Amino acid sequence: MNQPRSGYLDAAAGLPLHPVAAEAMQAAWQDGWADPSRLTGAGRRSAVLLDAARQAAAAELGVRPDELSFLPSGVHALQHGVLGSLTGRRRAGNVLLHSAVEHSAVFQAADWHRQHGGEVLVAGVDSAGRVMLDQFLELAGQPQVATAVLQAANHEVGTRQPVAEAAQRLAELGVPLVVDASHELVYGQPPATAPIFTADARLWGGPAGVGLLVIRQGARWRPPFPVDEAESGRAAGAPNVPAIVAAVASLRATRADRAAEGRRLAELTELIRRQVPLTVADTVVLGEDDPAGRLPQLVTFSCLYLDGEALLTELDRRGFAVSSGSSCTSDTLTPSHVLVAMGALTSGNIRISLHPGVSQADVERFLAALPEAVAAVRSQAPGSPAAQPGTAAQPSPAAQSSPAAQSRPQAAGSSPDGVAGSVLDSRGRRCPLPVLDLARALPGVDVGSDVTVLADDPAAASDLAAWCRMRGQQLVEQTAMTGGATAYRVRRLR
Amino acid sequence: MNQPRSGYLDAAAGLPLHPVAAEAMQAAWQDGWADPSRLTGAGRRSAVLLDAARQAAAAELGVRPDELSFLPSGVHALQHGVLGSLTGRRRAGNVLLHSAVEHSAVFQAADWHRQHGGEVLVAGVDSAGRVMLDQFLELAGQPQVATAVLQAANHEVGTRQPVAEAAQRLAELGVPLVVDASHELVYGQPPATAPIFTADARLWGGPAGVGLLVIRQGARWRPPFPVDEAESGRAAGAPNVPAIVAAVASLRATRADRAAEGRRLAELTELIRRQVPLTVADTVVLGEDDPAGRLPQLVTFSCLYLDGEALLTELDRRGFAVSSGSSCTSDTLTPSHVLVAMGALTSGNIRISLHPGVSQADVERFLAALPEAVAAVRSQAPGSPAAQPGTAAQPSPAAQSSPAAQSRPQAAGSSPDGVAGSVLDSRGRRCPLPVLDLARALPGVDVGSDVTVLADDPAAASDLAAWCRMRGQQLVEQTAMTGGATAYRVRRLR
Repeated sequence: MNQPRSGYLDAAAGLPLHPVAAEAMQAAWQDGWADPSRLTGAGRRSAVLLDAARQAAAAELGVRPDELSFLPSGVHALQHGVLGSLTGRRRAGNVLLHSAVEHSAVFQAADWHRQHGGEVLVAGVDSAGRVMLDQFLELAGQPQVATAVLQAANHEVGTRQPVAEAAQRLAELGVPLVVDASHELVYGQPPATAPIFTADARLWGGPAGVGLLVIRQGARWRPPFPVDEAESGRAAGAPNVPAIVAAVASLRATRADRAAEGRRLAELTELIRRQVPLTVADTVVLGEDDPAGRLPQLVTFSCLYLDGEALLTELDRRGFAVSSGSSCTSDTLTPSHVLVAMGALTSGNIRISLHPGVSQADVERFLAALPEAVAAVRSQAPGSPAAQPGTAAQPSPAAQSSPAAQSRPQAAGSSPDGVAGSVLDSRGRRCPLPVLDLARALPGVDVGSDVTVLADDPAAASDLAAWCRMRGQQLVEQTAMTGGATAYRVRRLR
Repeated sequence: MNQPRSGYLDAAAGLPLHPVAAEAMQAAWQDGWADPSRLTGAGRRSAVLLDAARQAAAAELGVRPDELSFLPSGVHALQHGVLGSLTGRRRAGNVLLHSAVEHSAVFQAADWHRQHGGEVLVAGVDSAGRVMLDQFLELAGQPQVATAVLQAANHEVGTRQPVAEAAQRLAELGVPLVVDASHELVYGQPPATAPIFTADARLWGGPAGVGLLVIRQGARWRPPFPVDEAESGRAAGAPNVPAIVAAVASLRATRADRAAEGRRLAELTELIRRQVPLTVADTVVLGEDDPAGRLPQLVTFSCLYLDGEALLTELDRRGFAVSSGSSCTSDTLTPSHVLVAMGALTSGNIRISLHPGVSQADVERFLAALPEAVAAVRSQAPGSPAAQPGTAAQPSPAAQSSPAAQSRPQAAGSSPDGVAGSVLDSRGRRCPLPVLDLARALPGVDVGSDVTVLADDPAAASDLAAWCRMRGQQLVEQTAMTGGATAYRVRRLR
């Protein structure tokens, strides 16, 4: 029981309860159900279990038990870590610094900080998703910077961040570093030199409802939100002792095998990295090439000219659960901020994340199924190369409206005045269609000439730029148009 | 398994997991472990379970499913309910109103509100702990009041609050009411007319980690803290589906029997109310006399001249788990704000709260054990009537220091100048000792004459006043002394 189906390749979104966690939780229902702050026998038995769990987890993380608190989720731990550091350092300033590829909980905390009068600085990343450390440190040296945030490794592409060097250099600047250690902690090392770090128990088969917040001795931290006496004034509400006991049991069980398991999973992700570009046309693997620079359990790629969520759904139909940073069809229409910051194509994105229950045979089954799944999605997409040619946008003189655009229900009408050369009207079309329109039209343009894509999908900005970089073409300029669309002028270079 | 021991009389502090909750949680580990927002099969199965749980709970509470959110604890739900109402009503003003006997989570939220520039008004209660509704409504009518908070029933003495009338009158004033419904919901009715109400699943045998937040359609509410898309933007972090499923299963199972069980428990609490004053000298039952005006499952009394935590410990040794609003020996030294607001004696306080696992025989065993336990504690207390007479404070002329005080290691020295008449130096002595000193000394004072008690225990202020009221004596005045102590002048009236 509680084992993920063999096609579950989305470990970074959470795992089923680890068998030792289920066993520990059931045992703790007997002796750990009471509020551990109570002076009754039941309360004392709870407190004994909580203390033992805290000591075991602290030993595993290399910290003191009184430096470790349990919060209701990884998101709570991260938000409390970041905003509590800012609250504790109010005298130093009111500026938060973080990288452009942090977990969304950091962006939510930053929004909240801004709404409450604070300022936020964001450091960029390279094309592998690694923070530009010089920029990060330069920003950290600016006046009023109170706290810096950097993940141990990226949750969407697996790239490890230089947290040890960042922590040391920031300490010289007097700025504390908060590290989101969630994904790294499963098979890697805790960020030993970070004053504050956090993790989410769901990533190692712990139950929902447990986040870890480590505040090292000497780090300034004050509760950003109302708290009570629980968890040394670092959390609200009585601690959830059975869930904490279970989370710690699964942390230790998972990390007991972490060296061997990390090597095994690194081989499997390497296999995916090598195979996918060979068997699926127009696919790029994202993130760091050097295995030492990335998580062993996670690999991400983007398949051009398709919608990642459509591929996710197609793979799900075939028994494989994966994740997608693409959001072409999601409610918010916001592309993954991680992929945008990397300058990567946001559409057609698929994240594979592995766990101890995944065998080499499972991965091979996935690799065998992927090309067919991609072909199926590409053939269904309106205007895809495999679909009828007449449905895609075609280059047309700027002075007249595109007949192809007129034949599409989504087309927004005639080309506007002031746009020179050939024009593709992709307004009203969502990712990956604007990129697809450009890819199909460019061969009809002379080398050295331009074509202008009109698009109003927010993802088009990053996706057209990423496609041009990938294909060696030039995005010459982009101009906002009245009505919310943007004109992207692209030059054919080859 | 998971049944509390038969002497567990502290249900208001939480119950072991209800058997149906344990069963539901184990089942949900199979199909509800994944983040329900995921587009994978596992995510969809989680979402189905979460939707079903939300619908079942909403039906039980008489609300629409989209009005109900799940938060990580009752404390989180209450704090989010209160502070989110204030955030949503910023335009109306920045003043929070609550009663003096709310759960500490409300006081913590109010402190946070004050620290962030808001104002707080507190309405008093009568000697039974019932809010003075006229005062509450008068305060609600003051300018800038944005939100009012009133519990459905008090968690320390069981007194029900007039929430239906308050909600109606507040609606006429345009001020929304937030109701903490936790204890009332177990056997009573949800507060149908309150725009916002909250509850804690631990009170009906649900797991830790689940609070309920109901925001009725039309109520203004905005998240006070960072949130994500989970729970319609009303919570942070993915919902804990197995725990939610378990919490709802135990809510329905508990409330299925609530009428019969409420009647049974009301008879048992009535038995305790009648018996305790008959078998234990110097004991008063607190809260509302009328059974319709209080919770059926909860009864509280105070035993004079002893420390509630010492009695709690003595009862625990005899196999009974109870709670105490007394904090004579706790770290914070802050007496229960509920008992202080009621003008009740804070020392020697014991709360009994019952649950379906408590039989009449259990209650009778408790009633048989109580007098002995009280006698044991009273005989151990330094300076208690049962201990050596020489150790208690004695009246002494003000001009010279008290020999009795000098013989006590805790005594703080000679009586200060400017204090007239007999003086009892109880400085350095903690509750219940200052009250005990007074009770032993007053018979040696002439009727119509005064004795002055010097005390520096914070609980002495409310306890000496409460004792004088209970015993028909007069607290003439109290004067702050240099050094942090207070001089309480008491007149013997009979």
